[in-house]
Amino acid sequence: MRAQTGTEHHPDLRVALEHLLSAGGKRIRPTIVFLAGNMLGAPQEKLITLGASVEMLHTATLVHDDLIDGSLLRRGMPTLNARWSPAATVLTGDFLFSRAAKLAAETDYLPLMKLFAETLSVIVNGELTQLFAARGVIDRNNYYRRIYAKTASLFEMSALAAAMISTEDEIVRTMLKTYGYEIGMAFQIMDDVLDFTGEQATVGKPVGSDLLQGLVTLPAIYFAESYPDDPDIKLLAEGGWGNQERMDRLVEAIRNTDSNSRAISEARHHVDLGLDALRNFPWSQERESLESLARYIIDRNV
Amino acid sequence: MRAQTGTEHHPDLRVALEHLLSAGGKRIRPTIVFLAGNMLGAPQEKLITLGASVEMLHTATLVHDDLIDGSLLRRGMPTLNARWSPAATVLTGDFLFSRAAKLAAETDYLPLMKLFAETLSVIVNGELTQLFAARGVIDRNNYYRRIYAKTASLFEMSALAAAMISTEDEIVRTMLKTYGYEIGMAFQIMDDVLDFTGEQATVGKPVGSDLLQGLVTLPAIYFAESYPDDPDIKLLAEGGWGNQERMDRLVEAIRNTDSNSRAISEARHHVDLGLDALRNFPWSQERESLESLARYIIDRNV
Repeated sequence: MRAQTGTEHHPDLRVALEHLLSAGGKRIRPTIVFLAGNMLGAPQEKLITLGASVEMLHTATLVHDDLIDGSLLRRGMPTLNARWSPAATVLTGDFLFSRAAKLAAETDYLPLMKLFAETLSVIVNGELTQLFAARGVIDRNNYYRRIYAKTASLFEMSALAAAMISTEDEIVRTMLKTYGYEIGMAFQIMDDVLDFTGEQATVGKPVGSDLLQGLVTLPAIYFAESYPDDPDIKLLAEGGWGNQERMDRLVEAIRNTDSNSRAISEARHHVDLGLDALRNFPWSQERESLESLARYIIDRNV
Repeated sequence: MRAQTGTEHHPDLRVALEHLLSAGGKRIRPTIVFLAGNMLGAPQEKLITLGASVEMLHTATLVHDDLIDGSLLRRGMPTLNARWSPAATVLTGDFLFSRAAKLAAETDYLPLMKLFAETLSVIVNGELTQLFAARGVIDRNNYYRRIYAKTASLFEMSALAAAMISTEDEIVRTMLKTYGYEIGMAFQIMDDVLDFTGEQATVGKPVGSDLLQGLVTLPAIYFAESYPDDPDIKLLAEGGWGNQERMDRLVEAIRNTDSNSRAISEARHHVDLGLDALRNFPWSQERESLESLARYIIDRNV
């Protein structure tokens, strides 16, 4: 994929792109593209273009995200904004958008372009909503909408796009779309669980950091449903998420109840639905890998 | 076009988009799209979609530009970043990119998508180059590359895209592309001339502001070619563009020589080439309007 960034652009930009693309990460989205596409017999060249495009779109949103959050580390490496000016960071994100769009167009399939543009607008709209949303809101539907926009939409797109360049069969497309959606939801739920259970060294941010920003995720929602009268939960709902001592106590309480394990069960249910969507495909190495990938989302963290 | 922003997104975003799209501006790019498309008999619906897409792409780049430059006014109205956080401004620009891409995809013509993505990457790459480039560089080719990336590329795209949805005829497409390119170059040269001759009240920024940032435009290049030993030009080339007193004197000197009028002649030459490109089309109201638009680029400022 690194070859896809081309060579005709500004040397400083090349350095930034090398930095970004060498920083690695799990590459889970292009992996979904390749596995799903190969399972369905997609043309190789288009598949590679599509995989690169998906990862570039993802990286573009990360670059702007890190700038917005002021994050200094990503994937264990300094973020662009830690080393560069905001101006260069904004423009590098934009450049990656333009490359992602160009690669998507090179798949020569218009519905794919529309899917890309629509997914980008879902992601960005989700970020804007989160930026302006009230904090400390304990609301399931709100949470589901948020994690769909933030994570599941791009997983869904990756699997669906791979199906789209492989087949016109709407049932097959829907199955892959479902697979992507379900494991995307599971992925984000597990990420949110990790914010309560993970070690700071592994996660790269302090435990409970979501809560301290007033961001209420699934474990906290389960806890609030079980213990609506808990004084710290009440404080959170009343806007007291800035109270570090009380929020630390709430994190402890969530860790010591079954709130996390119930959130994990919910993630597992999503994975099961994702596996269900693959059930009717004949056995193949790729199908097995897609299944392993789905299960890994739970297992890596439990 | 304002209807094209849709209604399904976040209310705060809607306010921002209303603000941006009501702020007006000359709408010169969609005007080129409509005139060229109507001259060539483009389907109306596609033409409207294309015009909206071009203007949205342009607005997206302006939103990020204003953030980068820290500009507080644009088109006589407060910029987004003057009223909002950088985070919201970055995301609003991204959202506009996604909408521009979606509209472009709705023209149902893949080569157009590729043209869009390519043009966006030319524009962004140009901005990145400018961000990292040495200041005070007196170089014609450097200048031409810069104004192509900054301005002429999108004018070129607007005219070419209108031709692309109208006809397969490569000669017609090339003529329109040439028209867009030439008047785009003229437009930016005249903008740069205005930086020396304009009244601050009209231009909205201090006279000579480009020079004070070490940005050497065509009038200064002509002056440097005529008076290579001028001490202020030498100072500029040696990195002294931060010296306000000396740069003010240089602005005065450029105003008092024929440097500006030679730059205007060069812009006029571009307009003539643009008019040439339309010469072989049969007379129509639209052709006449495209010609007037080209001439207006010079006349509005002289």
